[in-house]
This record gives sequence, structure tokens and C-alpha cells, in this order.
Amino acid sequence: MRNIEVCLSPKLIGEYGAKGKIVVVVDILRATSCMVTAFAHGAKAIFPIETIEECKALQGLGHLAAAERDGKIVEGFEIGNSPFSYLQPNIVGQSIAVTTTNGTVAIKLSAEADEILIGSFLNKTAVAQYILAQHKDVLIVCAGWKNKMNLEDTIFAGALVELLQGEFESANDSTTAAAILYNTAKQDLFAFVTGHSSHYKRLKTLALDKDIAFCLQRDIYTVIPVMRGSEMVPMYHKSTVEVTK
Amino acid sequence: MRNIEVCLSPKLIGEYGAKGKIVVVVDILRATSCMVTAFAHGAKAIFPIETIEECKALQGLGHLAAAERDGKIVEGFEIGNSPFSYLQPNIVGQSIAVTTTNGTVAIKLSAEADEILIGSFLNKTAVAQYILAQHKDVLIVCAGWKNKMNLEDTIFAGALVELLQGEFESANDSTTAAAILYNTAKQDLFAFVTGHSSHYKRLKTLALDKDIAFCLQRDIYTVIPVMRGSEMVPMYHKSTVEVTK
Repeated sequence: MRNIEVCLSPKLIGEYGAKGKIVVVVDILRATSCMVTAFAHGAKAIFPIETIEECKALQGLGHLAAAERDGKIVEGFEIGNSPFSYLQPNIVGQSIAVTTTNGTVAIKLSAEADEILIGSFLNKTAVAQYILAQHKDVLIVCAGWKNKMNLEDTIFAGALVELLQGEFESANDSTTAAAILYNTAKQDLFAFVTGHSSHYKRLKTLALDKDIAFCLQRDIYTVIPVMRGSEMVPMYHKSTVEVTK
Repeated sequence: MRNIEVCLSPKLIGEYGAKGKIVVVVDILRATSCMVTAFAHGAKAIFPIETIEECKALQGLGHLAAAERDGKIVEGFEIGNSPFSYLQPNIVGQSIAVTTTNGTVAIKLSAEADEILIGSFLNKTAVAQYILAQHKDVLIVCAGWKNKMNLEDTIFAGALVELLQGEFESANDSTTAAAILYNTAKQDLFAFVTGHSSHYKRLKTLALDKDIAFCLQRDIYTVIPVMRGSEMVPMYHKSTVEVTK
């Protein structure tokens, strides 16, 4: 049996280790949901950037640039952290520099992995099908909120664990906890997240409601963003493995 | 409203901060359950020790000494990590040096707190009553397993959050996650823990079954172990605050 673990905070990645594994980075609200949306709508590449300064530098070189801190767009950038920003025609064929509070940090900290995939509810079955066709252990890295766990990333991890069950086992309780929490949430993800998430309570706006409803849609896209060096590119996987949705 | 947070791993204590707070340290299987049991059965003091060498030195000076690593008693020590070790008459009036894989580390890392209490299912209502009578924020520190979260400590945290709800609020999702997980578990804690806990699967023995059943009893003791400098001593709290069990 292959091993699957859920890391609830980027600060705990070292406790699990990424080496030799497929790492799935998750930041449901909203970084990884945006990345999947961008590729589904024609983006060519994304550069995850740690600092606002570096992101600004790439913007100066002609890239589209997206910067978010504390859930809000940073002044001077075209794009913030709403998936609707990536539904625009000006995304097609573009390379985009992106920096966010939690998501891009989690990607950098997973650098030792054999392969880094970007997961979200939007492409979760595609991610699961790809993973099933490989022969590697899996670590799901939840970006969380400033090194603390969050519910929306954890329930996504639980959803992925549910899709992969039978083929994987886990030696740690965070995997089980994520699966139990997803089971509690899955009948109505929107009600669960808006009812419980501290991220939602912190940022509550009408626009955020729309973003959340968008990000919690399941399996509307089949693209899997994957890191190739410092660049994220789209990957499509034609699977022969059956996954029960 | 006062603030309550649940820290799922000792490695994340710095993200929450212990300063100015009441910290409740939890290691249900089995360090903190044993400590509560020891005081309920007449122990005078406990010294939480980080290393086996220091623990051995205190043993040489005439203390009773308990040492556990990876869930097993360390050779050369009288007492391991079973609560039944503390039901013996030789405990009465004794000072005991204790070192365990996770529990004693969590206590040391919480040193900045205003007060460190020891929590377990055995004394959970007493702990809640004491906390309600103070005027401080609360951080529940789950000892976990080698810096990873575990289910048994997390559901205890959820049980304490449930007892304190109404008087406390939380800015972070780990508190909500713990409460949801406890809600899933509370009808039958033994079935939940033996069905899901990786700690149980790792160590599964008949003796462990008995220990777990003992540790999951709710409110059989009213003593609250509390740190006074480097020494843990028993405290009893006569509360006038009603707590719904």
C-alpha cells in the first residue's frame, strides 16, 4: 500500500518530509483555486513568488502580476485573489506572477518533492486520477492561515483522501481527521465553510461569498497545475483508472 | 469575550503564543491522564523531565521515576505510562520524576504561560470550572505524536471547548475542528479512539485497551495538576460556576 499524509500547516512539512513524494498543495480560499481557474481559462504559466517586491519586479518585466496579503489585493497590482479575475480574456496565453499570504509559501516549502501538484475542489478528481496512475507516496500540504490549520484546506484534503481510499494507507491521525471533517461538510460545502471558517468571518463581504461559492464547486475543471522548476504549467491526464465521484 | 485556541502540535505553540494565558496541556494517551490519576491517588508532586538521563539522575536521588518512549516503559524505571501504575499505594506522598515522548515536551514549551494546567477526560469538568472562574485567555496545547496532531488530544480539546462555549470565542479554525471532531466522537469515545487513532494501531495490546478505557472515563476526578515553577502539584477548585456536563 502507498502512504498518504495530510500536513495541516506549512510549518509541519518537515515532520512529514516531501522528498520522493507527490505533494499536493492546497489553498482553497483562494490561491490554488485561482491557479486552477487561470489554467482552465488559457493561462500559459504561473510563477509563484514569495515577496511583493519580487512580484512587482516581474510585473515591470511585462508579466501580469497578482498579489494578495491578508485576503486583499495589494495596491499597484492588476489581479488580486478572486477566481473571477482569471475568467477574463486577457489571461489567455499569459505568464502570471503570483504572491499570496499562504499559498505561495506552501509551494516553496515543498520544493523537495518529486512533483508538486496544485489541488482544489475545482479539479479534485483530475488530481486523484493522476495520483492513482503514479507509484508514489502522497503528502497533501494545506497552506492554512499564517501557519495555523484552516477548515477549507483540511476538508479538501479529506475529499482527496476519500477519493484515494483503498489504494493508500496513513500512519497519522491528521489524515483521518481530515476525512471525518470532510464527511461532516460534504453535503453542503458552502454552508459548512461560511458557517465555520474563521477566514470567512475575518473577510466577510458579498464578493467573498461569490468567490467561495465558485471555489467550492467540485470537478468543473480537469487541468492539473504542476511545478516544473520555478514555473507552474498546466498538465492534463488521460486516465484509465476509475474514480468514484 | 475571552479567547480560546487549540494548538494541535507542540511545534505550533509559537504561532499562538502562551504568554499571559492559561495553558492546558493534554496528552490523553497517556501522560496527562497518568498525572491526574497520580494526584487523585495521593502523589505529592511530579517533576516533568525532558530527558531519560535527567530522569535517571532524579531516580538516583530517591524519587520514584517514570519513563516512556514510543509508548513503552524504558528499561530500568519502576513506572511506565499506564494509569494503573498510579493506582498503587506506593504512590501516596511521593514525588515522581516523569519523562514521556510527547507530554513533558509540551509542558516545557508552554513555559511562558501565566499558568499551566494538566487536562484529561478524567478531570475535564474540574479544569473547565477553574478556567471559568479566572479572567484569562486559554490555549489548549495538544501534545500530539512527535509534533503531529493526534485524534485523542484533539477530541479532548473539543470537549473542553464545548464546556466553555458561550464564555469564549476563537479566531482560528483548529478550535472549531476540535469541537466538530469531539461531537463525532462523544457518544462512544472508546469506539472512536480504537477505531481511528494511529497511536492505538501502533501499540495495540490488551493492556493498552485497558489503559485507553481508563483514560477515556469522564470526570472521575476533581484534582487539577498545576505547574509551580518546575514542579507540578495538585490543586482543587471549589467553583460556584455552573458547567453543563
